[in-house]
Amino acid sequence: MHIAFDADDTLWHNEPIFELTQERVAELLADWAPAAELGETLNRTERRNLRLFGYGAKGFTLALMETALEVSGGRVPGSVLQQILDAGKAMIEHPVELLPGAAQTIDALAAEHPLLLITKGELFHQESKIARSGLADRFAGIEIVSEKDEATYRKILERHAIAAERFVMIGNSVKSDILPVVALGGNAIHVPYESHWELDKIDHRGAEAEGFFEAASMHEVPRVLARIAAQGWEPAGCS
Amino acid sequence: MHIAFDADDTLWHNEPIFELTQERVAELLADWAPAAELGETLNRTERRNLRLFGYGAKGFTLALMETALEVSGGRVPGSVLQQILDAGKAMIEHPVELLPGAAQTIDALAAEHPLLLITKGELFHQESKIARSGLADRFAGIEIVSEKDEATYRKILERHAIAAERFVMIGNSVKSDILPVVALGGNAIHVPYESHWELDKIDHRGAEAEGFFEAASMHEVPRVLARIAAQGWEPAGCS
Repeated sequence: MHIAFDADDTLWHNEPIFELTQERVAELLADWAPAAELGETLNRTERRNLRLFGYGAKGFTLALMETALEVSGGRVPGSVLQQILDAGKAMIEHPVELLPGAAQTIDALAAEHPLLLITKGELFHQESKIARSGLADRFAGIEIVSEKDEATYRKILERHAIAAERFVMIGNSVKSDILPVVALGGNAIHVPYESHWELDKIDHRGAEAEGFFEAASMHEVPRVLARIAAQGWEPAGCS
Repeated sequence: MHIAFDADDTLWHNEPIFELTQERVAELLADWAPAAELGETLNRTERRNLRLFGYGAKGFTLALMETALEVSGGRVPGSVLQQILDAGKAMIEHPVELLPGAAQTIDALAAEHPLLLITKGELFHQESKIARSGLADRFAGIEIVSEKDEATYRKILERHAIAAERFVMIGNSVKSDILPVVALGGNAIHVPYESHWELDKIDHRGAEAEGFFEAASMHEVPRVLARIAAQGWEPAGCS
């Protein structure tokens, strides 16, 4: 079997770094807009720019600056804009902090299975985080993609010659890590993260179908994998 | 044999789009700095940010805004900053214009060889340009990478099980498309572009070694490939 992991908010903290950056910018812009209004404008700006910038910290930084210009009617001082830019850079440089159980689970599983890392975002920043995580050499393959939909997973499975029913994807996003994999006939383990990014929210009632599993944390993942295996994807005679 | 192409400034125009954007921003900032000084500050800013942002249009847009703040001592009006941001977005949306001979050469070669596309930059923007080029389906594999060095090419050759001596890389950058491939024992065809990006310049005296070829344009590439083939990478008995 092939086991694949999402990275941001599955193996390491990510969303809080964006949230903290947004809070810092909200303080900087408190004279121009209350935090709630700022958040709405930022969300609107991000959604509008998504087709140009895709996901990631650079697009987020550009959206923060555009939001600052918008809520201030262009009157925000240059010194504040420079601080926003610096906050964006600090976000990119932020240390990679592994989630509880991530290192142990990856170590234990890597000894027995070829592991893949499948992560969405900016190529350069993702590569930097993977390198800094100290986990890079546990993965037989690393796939950095711009979108995690059925077409993307189908291509990855083809390239690695993996049958969907012998593939397990593990991640925190129902939309990106679970639904497309289950739709392809694969297995997926949802490990919820404490926080949820607004654009990644999706109504997943009805998703609890065959192939869909839950784990409370990375510590629990090996136990859930064993349960999936017991359901029968070991070859006959090996169970 | 496996034939791989660079994309930006090899298959389609790229550098002039960055240059036009920089000229537009220079006009916007003419009150604060002469174009030459602006160019120097921009270059310095890009180099400083490279380890955080990598290559690409989003990092370039952030560098343009940072440069505007720097040369104006933070006094540049918000309306000008918004125009710089808009110029960055326009750059990302700019139509993909193929270089002379690119479509014909790719079509002719794709009929006989598995072609690869190997391009450096921002994942999302590169994918968008590849899709809009109309050439995507001619390539057996597309590799978007953050850096084009020996390690990157070695990994690509391994993944596709290609022997270096049966690999030809075609591109406009001596630093990124030619030298690392020749160093690995592969072949490379340099197709110079009319313009050169400052950070991509490298002194390549002494590079005219075995495996290094020149073509004046994409039209000439098939002829140079035939010359390489005649030197002996067809299997014995097939020449």
